[in-house]
Amino acid sequence: MKVRVTVMPKAGVLDPQGKAIGHALDSLGFGGVGEVRAGKVIELELAETDPNAAKAAAEDMARRLLANSVIESYRVEIAP
Amino acid sequence: MKVRVTVMPKAGVLDPQGKAIGHALDSLGFGGVGEVRAGKVIELELAETDPNAAKAAAEDMARRLLANSVIESYRVEIAP
Repeated sequence: MKVRVTVMPKAGVLDPQGKAIGHALDSLGFGGVGEVRAGKVIELELAETDPNAAKAAAEDMARRLLANSVIESYRVEIAP
Repeated sequence: MKVRVTVMPKAGVLDPQGKAIGHALDSLGFGGVGEVRAGKVIELELAETDPNAAKAAAEDMARRLLANSVIESYRVEIAP
């Protein structure tokens, strides 16, 4: 079962990578670009076949390794 | 309108970050973890209000800046 963990900087946390992307888009002539936030996405192939158990395992992984809960929030979903 | 661009390494492209995460999960005692792929997600706040136009703009941004199409694939979606 494929699970996707998306890790984003929390609102209010400075995101220099997002800012840099915003500036670069501006330089390339893209207008109307407001806030840009850059995060990570981790796709995991799990042996677990029960969706709820797979989701719970991925949330545990996110808490313990993938996300820094002080500055990042995460979201776990079953990938299609 | 908020648009999300997800950039992943293409299948077959070596993904050292994903491999490192896989090994770290293993060390932490998480079993049953198969392939791990690590990518980026960029959330953009666009002034554009038409979903199709916003998607088209984000795809253009992905092609020109956010993704390296030689080794990465991207997916654009309207964020809820």
